[in-house]
Amino acid sequence: MALITLTTDFGARDHFTGAMKGVILSIAPRVTIVDITHEVAAFEVTEGAFTVAEASRSFPKKTIHVVVVDPGVGSARRPILVEAGGHLFLGPDNGVLSMIYGRQQARIRAIANDKYFLQPVSPTFHGRDIFAPVAAHLARGLKPKQVGPVIEDYLRVTLEKPTRTGKRSWAGTVLKVDRFGNLITNFHVDEFPTVRERPIVMIPGVRTVEKMAVTYAEAQPGEPVVIIGSSGFLEVCVNQDSAAKVMGCVAGSPVELSIY
Amino acid sequence: MALITLTTDFGARDHFTGAMKGVILSIAPRVTIVDITHEVAAFEVTEGAFTVAEASRSFPKKTIHVVVVDPGVGSARRPILVEAGGHLFLGPDNGVLSMIYGRQQARIRAIANDKYFLQPVSPTFHGRDIFAPVAAHLARGLKPKQVGPVIEDYLRVTLEKPTRTGKRSWAGTVLKVDRFGNLITNFHVDEFPTVRERPIVMIPGVRTVEKMAVTYAEAQPGEPVVIIGSSGFLEVCVNQDSAAKVMGCVAGSPVELSIY
Amino acid sequence: MALITLTTDFGARDHFTGAMKGVILSIAPRVTIVDITHEVAAFEVTEGAFTVAEASRSFPKKTIHVVVVDPGVGSARRPILVEAGGHLFLGPDNGVLSMIYGRQQARIRAIANDKYFLQPVSPTFHGRDIFAPVAAHLARGLKPKQVGPVIEDYLRVTLEKPTRTGKRSWAGTVLKVDRFGNLITNFHVDEFPTVRERPIVMIPGVRTVEKMAVTYAEAQPGEPVVIIGSSGFLEVCVNQDSAAKVMGCVAGSPVELSIY
Repeated sequence: MALITLTTDFGARDHFTGAMKGVILSIAPRVTIVDITHEVAAFEVTEGAFTVAEASRSFPKKTIHVVVVDPGVGSARRPILVEAGGHLFLGPDNGVLSMIYGRQQARIRAIANDKYFLQPVSPTFHGRDIFAPVAAHLARGLKPKQVGPVIEDYLRVTLEKPTRTGKRSWAGTVLKVDRFGNLITNFHVDEFPTVRERPIVMIPGVRTVEKMAVTYAEAQPGEPVVIIGSSGFLEVCVNQDSAAKVMGCVAGSPVELSIY
Repeated sequence: MALITLTTDFGARDHFTGAMKGVILSIAPRVTIVDITHEVAAFEVTEGAFTVAEASRSFPKKTIHVVVVDPGVGSARRPILVEAGGHLFLGPDNGVLSMIYGRQQARIRAIANDKYFLQPVSPTFHGRDIFAPVAAHLARGLKPKQVGPVIEDYLRVTLEKPTRTGKRSWAGTVLKVDRFGNLITNFHVDEFPTVRERPIVMIPGVRTVEKMAVTYAEAQPGEPVVIIGSSGFLEVCVNQDSAAKVMGCVAGSPVELSIY
Repeated sequence: MALITLTTDFGARDHFTGAMKGVILSIAPRVTIVDITHEVAAFEVTEGAFTVAEASRSFPKKTIHVVVVDPGVGSARRPILVEAGGHLFLGPDNGVLSMIYGRQQARIRAIANDKYFLQPVSPTFHGRDIFAPVAAHLARGLKPKQVGPVIEDYLRVTLEKPTRTGKRSWAGTVLKVDRFGNLITNFHVDEFPTVRERPIVMIPGVRTVEKMAVTYAEAQPGEPVVIIGSSGFLEVCVNQDSAAKVMGCVAGSPVELSIY
């Protein structure tokens, strides 16, 4: 009962994801395919990296995750295979898998053995012609080492981390705005554990938020609060409203944090 | 071959639904997961209630339906399990399952046995940490009574029904606008069977519609008609156009019906 | 391990696709259902035709494809079953399957045997009451000839092909704008093989594009190029931007091609 997940920026309207699924099921008819999302904002490598890192934590070991957010398709960047935490991840070598290999021990291989590609490989649709068939062969028992050699010169992306700006203050950013308009910042509770006990001030955009809550529901409707989100990152939320709209923030907006 | 359906307001962009599926497949690898929709308008409990009630009618007995539309996540409202019509339904006790237990005999339990929860339970993501794992255990054979006790004090929502305003007239509302712009009203043919034979006048917003049709195709392009929709509710449609746009109506808009 | 794909214009918000899946799994619990897309623009038969034709090429033989883009549901048009290339296709007789039977040998049947329909058939939801159950019965081994008789008077749609306007020039159109804003034209490389070697000028809207590239990545950011897309059709792309926006083009916009 092999499991393949798909995370792409292909959207839901075109035939792209359907074609990938057809290729996978042609090679591995018994595999279960799970859509994580196809709505990563077009070409937004960081958003794709965050999404697959968060979603994959809930999947069983041996799951194969295919991630195609690839503004450089057809350029010199290689497709890579990452072995980490008992899972396999396939994607372009553009940083979209950096939140996987940046957080834990990982072995990274170039996907080089074109025996497992669909021929001829379309220069613009590696999802269908490289990632889908290689994932399907892995689901059927192909060994990672048969896919290609271990490499060291993969793209090392420095994940944006908050920087210290004073004795009690840090400058961070909004990693992502979720469906509900919550601002997911790059302040992780594991790195800022004192937020659990000490007074904080968070300033997303030009607004100041001082209330820390366990859930949205503790706030009055319309009141902004900071919570420790389900991913462990601090989030700015407005109960029953969009913090992004209220604060005028988007992914990449600066956020200041002070802990007293 | 257990079947779990998912109905949420999580949208398609984030990792939330992927995480729920990962949890389910970790516990019950052989289950088939079916997405009903993740596009219930954020926090729209009534829309979620309508969607799961309509969709579930087409599923086989023993299907497990998980519904997460939960503006109050983390507040005092309990997660509940509803046994009705041979199906199981899991959701928050906020009315989102009221069109299930309001229509038929049902047994309602609190989901209380935290042995089946993912620990630690995130205060903001019960979909992943409570509903998904409990549904998966039910799919593997867990008995409903092991989930928690029968309760009587669940939220009894009075579904909005039309009210009589005259000898031949009723005031109702638009329950929902569907993808095609059709106005699904809360007039059900089972309660107004004479619409099949007698002349009617329906007034959604400020427009008057007198033509009853079996299908959209009987109308001229651009002409509004009333049909008995596939759910049994009267719908106002405009052939090859959006009745919502033409009439200026949204969910909640008033609708008058007269039967002569 | 039968495979059923779904291509509709039902959108992701309503209960429609969930209901179809429930019907299929009630009849054929072991079938694998694959969503191609439910986001075909409402009533856009040509877009649906293109999508299913492209996606189905990647699926294994014996796959059953259900296509519901049906502005005339309930009118006199018949549901049809197309046998072509070892696949089965079900849809309304409105041209949505014309890119299947227009490209290859095919046998077309009326779906006439109402023994396999859900009764009573809703006049407005043939997806649930006709196409889903018939597809499920086919997945379980029903023979096509049991579905209905071969017909000859199905709708023959002339696919829009480029027309010659001069010794070296042709007038074509934009078939589709994809998620990335690429303009997929109706110039296919099989019919215009010399584009591979000779200088070209393509004029989508009022802009002129002379650069032919293998991939988007060969162009400067913001630079428009013509590529041979993964479907074989010429596409106008702007590297890391939307050609549709830059050129002001939509599906149906005229495109001129000259080959020197």
